[in-house]
Amino acid sequence: MRVSYDEMYGVVMEKLEKYGVTGDVAVGCAQNLVENTQYGVASHGINRFPRLIEMLKNGSVKPDAKPVRVGSLGAMEQWDGNLGMGNTNAAFCMDRAVELAKELGIGCVALRHTNHWQRAGAFGARAAKAGCIGICWTNTMPNMPAWGAKDRHIGNNPLVMCVPYQDDYVMIDGAMAQFSYGAIDSAALSGRELPVPGGYDEQGNVTRNPAEIKKTWRVLPIGFWKGSGFAILLDMMAASLSGGMSVCEIGKQGATPTDEYNLSQVFIAIQVTDKAANDETVRRIIADIKSSNPVEPGLEVLYPGERALAAYHESKQRGIRVEEAVWQTVLAL
Amino acid sequence: MRVSYDEMYGVVMEKLEKYGVTGDVAVGCAQNLVENTQYGVASHGINRFPRLIEMLKNGSVKPDAKPVRVGSLGAMEQWDGNLGMGNTNAAFCMDRAVELAKELGIGCVALRHTNHWQRAGAFGARAAKAGCIGICWTNTMPNMPAWGAKDRHIGNNPLVMCVPYQDDYVMIDGAMAQFSYGAIDSAALSGRELPVPGGYDEQGNVTRNPAEIKKTWRVLPIGFWKGSGFAILLDMMAASLSGGMSVCEIGKQGATPTDEYNLSQVFIAIQVTDKAANDETVRRIIADIKSSNPVEPGLEVLYPGERALAAYHESKQRGIRVEEAVWQTVLAL
Repeated sequence: MRVSYDEMYGVVMEKLEKYGVTGDVAVGCAQNLVENTQYGVASHGINRFPRLIEMLKNGSVKPDAKPVRVGSLGAMEQWDGNLGMGNTNAAFCMDRAVELAKELGIGCVALRHTNHWQRAGAFGARAAKAGCIGICWTNTMPNMPAWGAKDRHIGNNPLVMCVPYQDDYVMIDGAMAQFSYGAIDSAALSGRELPVPGGYDEQGNVTRNPAEIKKTWRVLPIGFWKGSGFAILLDMMAASLSGGMSVCEIGKQGATPTDEYNLSQVFIAIQVTDKAANDETVRRIIADIKSSNPVEPGLEVLYPGERALAAYHESKQRGIRVEEAVWQTVLAL
Repeated sequence: MRVSYDEMYGVVMEKLEKYGVTGDVAVGCAQNLVENTQYGVASHGINRFPRLIEMLKNGSVKPDAKPVRVGSLGAMEQWDGNLGMGNTNAAFCMDRAVELAKELGIGCVALRHTNHWQRAGAFGARAAKAGCIGICWTNTMPNMPAWGAKDRHIGNNPLVMCVPYQDDYVMIDGAMAQFSYGAIDSAALSGRELPVPGGYDEQGNVTRNPAEIKKTWRVLPIGFWKGSGFAILLDMMAASLSGGMSVCEIGKQGATPTDEYNLSQVFIAIQVTDKAANDETVRRIIADIKSSNPVEPGLEVLYPGERALAAYHESKQRGIRVEEAVWQTVLAL
């Protein structure tokens, strides 16, 4: 089914207020959740909203907490999220990194004691819309084995890189696991094989069968040892720079793997001084990629983020796509 | 065979001077090449030295060029490498990013018109030894197809993240391709299969057979579409921030795929204000990873960079390992 922006925003606002979220935090949170869904990322938009309400109810997310600066070194600042709303904390910190970048060329904000930011790419996009290159990442629950291990001690730690381009941007928003738990669950439910190997079965063989992977949750890092290494470094940098929790500590504080709270994040913005030159560079790179010989005749080679932008424009025209069952669950919150 | 540091350094210095490299540039270049080999990365150390001499001879690398600052915004600077020596240009720029970070918390240097920096990790390590977190990346020749394409329009664009730890560091130094051309060549020569899939055969099937991959050079990005996306963004950021060449332009200037020169790079250093707290965070993360259940009983789960550090300590004790044929080639330069 499809729902208009105004309708989805209205319902989300009503539910947020019902559970104690008010003012700027409610507005920012609702805008973020609805926009993520507009961009075709319902998994980190409306589909996650019931889980956010659950976390508001169980006290993991504090509805009235605001981020507070705890350290400043010029272009680099440390903030404490006070366990407040993850997506508004993150938006605030990327905006602060942009302010620093406007003044000093580059800005970095490390944020501790924050919560799940929903769609990682939203904050890269935020930097780009303000005329900056945006880089950001978060740590997570231990949800992936380190390379050489069977059990989960590292996070999939999503990493975003975003470059402004014309009125929009080019962006990669990717976790260090080949597939999210949601993607594996959803493939298992519909009986589909994954398009590429996503983890291991109980015999220790790499497999595309999501039901087999669900028996082990031994998911594959992107690039095997490489994604494992990048994930570990992203966690070390986030925990060290923010003074907050590392992946292993996040894992120890919760009783179940869904208790993902009290995270550490880093936001970097870099000023693009000559927007026209930047756009021309990006345009040439896109044109060159699109001149590639596609794997099948007639297929278009897409640039990173192109599919999400197309989904956004479709949502604007035709309403936001949402699964009926999800929407009914949201209405009943 | 093994060669002492002094012997290898002496020979490299002698050859550099023979081909017109003198003073600080010769010293820095020789130190870098020998150290890379000490760290077990001969592929980006002594093994690449004949190719560097070739580039000095054909004029791609200007022996007496020095980097010059062309833009400054506070904590962010643009430098022009003037097609000088790649590894000394890169060391200079990471050192400059560290200076900015010491003053302003974070520093970023974007470098254009530079050359191959040999081992990417050397510059992350440089930041860490100076008490900073180091992040850096380079673009390359078009050496990998974008996701959805068969022919090579994007670079494998190595990315480094490095966190100081005790007297050393933890570091990931990884290109966006699953395997380097060198690794594929070397597996093909010895008739070994690659440990995981590394590219496509002529029928468009993913394969671990290096000889088949060499027929297409359709190599796999790490994480399929994800590594392709990260590679494209790393190139866009490097070319936009530096004002230098993008991957497609680097590809157009050279007659053969070995003519990899005139690259764009980015160096970011972030100050670690409390080294003791940083070390404790990193120590806990390493301890947790090492407490994993290994894929085979008795195997140790390694942290990123641990193997290279072990190689370094072995090289210090027993001399630097070098292939006899490579050493003879170097001596004959």
